[in-house]
This record gives sequence, structure tokens and C-alpha cells, in this order.
Amino acid sequence: MIVLYDLAGADGRRFSPHCWRTRMALAHKGLKYTTVPVRFTEISTIADEKQKAVPVIEDGGRIVGDSWAIANFLEETRPDRSLFGGASGHALTLFAQSWITDVLHRGVVELVLLDIHDQLDERDKAYFRASRERRFGRTLEDVQAGRETRVPDFRKSLQPLRQVLSVEQWFGGNSPLYVDYLVFGALQWPRVASRFPLLAEDDPIANWFARCLDLFGGLGRQAVPSR
Amino acid sequence: MIVLYDLAGADGRRFSPHCWRTRMALAHKGLKYTTVPVRFTEISTIADEKQKAVPVIEDGGRIVGDSWAIANFLEETRPDRSLFGGASGHALTLFAQSWITDVLHRGVVELVLLDIHDQLDERDKAYFRASRERRFGRTLEDVQAGRETRVPDFRKSLQPLRQVLSVEQWFGGNSPLYVDYLVFGALQWPRVASRFPLLAEDDPIANWFARCLDLFGGLGRQAVPSR
Repeated sequence: MIVLYDLAGADGRRFSPHCWRTRMALAHKGLKYTTVPVRFTEISTIADEKQKAVPVIEDGGRIVGDSWAIANFLEETRPDRSLFGGASGHALTLFAQSWITDVLHRGVVELVLLDIHDQLDERDKAYFRASRERRFGRTLEDVQAGRETRVPDFRKSLQPLRQVLSVEQWFGGNSPLYVDYLVFGALQWPRVASRFPLLAEDDPIANWFARCLDLFGGLGRQAVPSR
Repeated sequence: MIVLYDLAGADGRRFSPHCWRTRMALAHKGLKYTTVPVRFTEISTIADEKQKAVPVIEDGGRIVGDSWAIANFLEETRPDRSLFGGASGHALTLFAQSWITDVLHRGVVELVLLDIHDQLDERDKAYFRASRERRFGRTLEDVQAGRETRVPDFRKSLQPLRQVLSVEQWFGGNSPLYVDYLVFGALQWPRVASRFPLLAEDDPIANWFARCLDLFGGLGRQAVPSR
């Protein structure tokens, strides 16, 4: 059985966008897996003790880190139920991932960075605050401040997603593919770590996200049963 | 034979990014076509006199406008040599198109807007200046001013493209697809209309663009033989 090392917050909740990509990919492939919750400050102790980030998977002794490398590894070793939808899908998914990681993640984190901190395990909080405040050049509080006035611009920045959903059921077309899990991870992250509403209720992206939460027996929905 | 109404500048040069999408798509499908050069101020007189923008094609009496509608029409009526690479490719191409039109086109036009104006047919210049200055809320000169200092940020904004080309030959994967022509159109536009260098010579995007110029017997390269 595959082991997934999965970032966890204070009460064990799984909030990492990159780890959600992998969880959904494993479920998409119909693979059996177990997860090991890890904190930021424990990452150097997992698997071969050479890992710098999660997700990491162990599969029959093979250790693979980085969500994109894991997705490619799963596609190569289990070609059934493709994650990408062929060669063009693979290239286009990489393009989408670049936008999602650069633009969408950045937009999300600027709205909920302090909330992410607040739900961390106590052992992680000092590390998280120091590393993120160095990256942003501001306090966590300053980064998150004024989000109510900034959220309309964030919603506007999602127009490329909305345009696809105006004609397609999934970002993968007729059925969900890895590109859906990329966007899902980006939005599951604030859903799990924060109560700040990032999307308007009547946004087509919110409808698509609800469908994602229902996939694989409600895998995503069960992460925080109360929301 | 298909007729393509194609935007033309002063000396007949074809600079429209949207029209280049369609030219490349027609060539990709191996279809015979002829082009009719039109100026902005002539668009209302073409085909059924109901068109508001180019490209427009006529195919055996059928009139289709809008580059995305044309691409879909071609794919439906000539399914061989797919432009999208399947259902997932279609959805992902639409996502890429949204980014390309919103972000890439915007970035390009802010660097070469005055140059585009200057190569227009005299009859188009007043219309172009008035409509674009209204859209930007500034003069053409002001929009283009300071481009030497702004071009590094533009180049940085192309990182999603560069990331794909670091592992893929084409945005469509193993062979060029419509998504390649979307990016091509965005860069052929300033190549034809301006002499301002948008890309560094050692940029992988420049290498990919040169390969695009060679496609279909050098269709794109021949548009401005001197460059």
C-alpha cells in the first residue's frame, strides 16, 4: 500500500494544496493508500530524511517527492485512468499548474496567510511565521490585512477558470483530471485552514468546487465535516 | 475554398493575433484558403455585413466569426488532424486562451500599442487612436512610454510558458496544436507590427517561436520577410 506523507495542522487537519493534489490523484487512480500526518518541522525526518517538502509518497520502497513528480510517477506506473488525458493534456496541465501555483496560490495566500498560521500545530508556528514573513517582507497580520476590500480583485483574477466552466463541466473536459485537482487543492487549502469566504456563492467556480468535494465518496468534503 | 477575412495594415501586412490563430489553424488542418485583407473600418462591410470583428471565414456559404468559434467549427467539420488533442485538450486550451488573451495580449499591447497604430492604413488610424485611448484612459504615446524599463516584467510574466517549454517541445506536447497558435498569434502580432524586441534571444520561448515561424512552409516567417 502507498504511504502518503501529508502536511497536518493542529488537530490533524490536512490543509496543504500540494498534498491535496496528490490525495486526489491517488483516489483518481483508485489506489489504496494510507496517510502519515507530518508537521512542517518534521519534514526532514520522514522517509529517507532527505525530503524538503511534502507531499512525499513511498511505494514499495520507492520514495517520490514533489506533487508533479508524483503525478508523473503514478501515470507511468499505473497508466489506467489517465490523470492528464494524453500528450497534449500533459503539456497543457503543466501550463495550468504554472498559472495555478504562481497566480492562484499567491492570490489565496494573501487572503488567508494569518489563518493558515493560526491553525498550525504549536511546534510549527514559529517556523512558519519566520519563513513567511521573510518571503513577504511583512508580518502575517499585514499580509492578511484589508482582505475584505481585496477579495473582489481576487475573484476577478479567477476569470480564466470561470471562462472554462462556462462551457465545460470539468477543467479536464467531460470528466475530472489532474488539472481539476490542481485548482481543487488551491481552494481546499483556504477551505480547510480558514473560514474567510473566497468565492461568491453564485460563482460557477463554487459549483464546480462543490462537485469536487463530492468526488471519491466525499474525500475532500470529509476533511472538515463542519463546513 | 475557404475565404478568410484577415486584418491588414498599411502595406497589407497581416498583424492581428486573432487572425493568426485562424491562419495557423487552417494550415494545421491542411485546408486550402484565400485571404481578403480588411481594415478595421471596413469590417462592417464584409461577408453578411453583420460582423463586428475579424477573423471571419466563409466556407461554402457558411459565415463564422470569432477565432474560437472558427477553431471549433473547423474541428467539427474536419475532425482529422485535431486542433485540441481530445476532450481534455479542448477544455485546457480554452483555459490557456483565457490567460493568453487576458494576460499575454495585455502585456504585449502595453509595449507596442503606438507601433501598432503607426503601421495601420491611414483610414484606420483615427478610429484606432480614439477607441484604444478610450479603453486605456491614456494616449497611445503614454501607454507605450517607458517600455524599455517595463519589458523585464513582461518577460517575467511569461514564466508559465517557459516552464512548459523546459520539458515539452510544443505547448501541445509532441506536436503543435491550437494552443501553440494562440501563443504564436500573441507574439507574431508585435513581430509584424513593431521592431521592439519583446523576448531575449536566449529565451526558450524565442526558440519555440522560431520553430513556429517555420511551420507550414514558413507561413508565419513570410509575413514580414525582412525580420
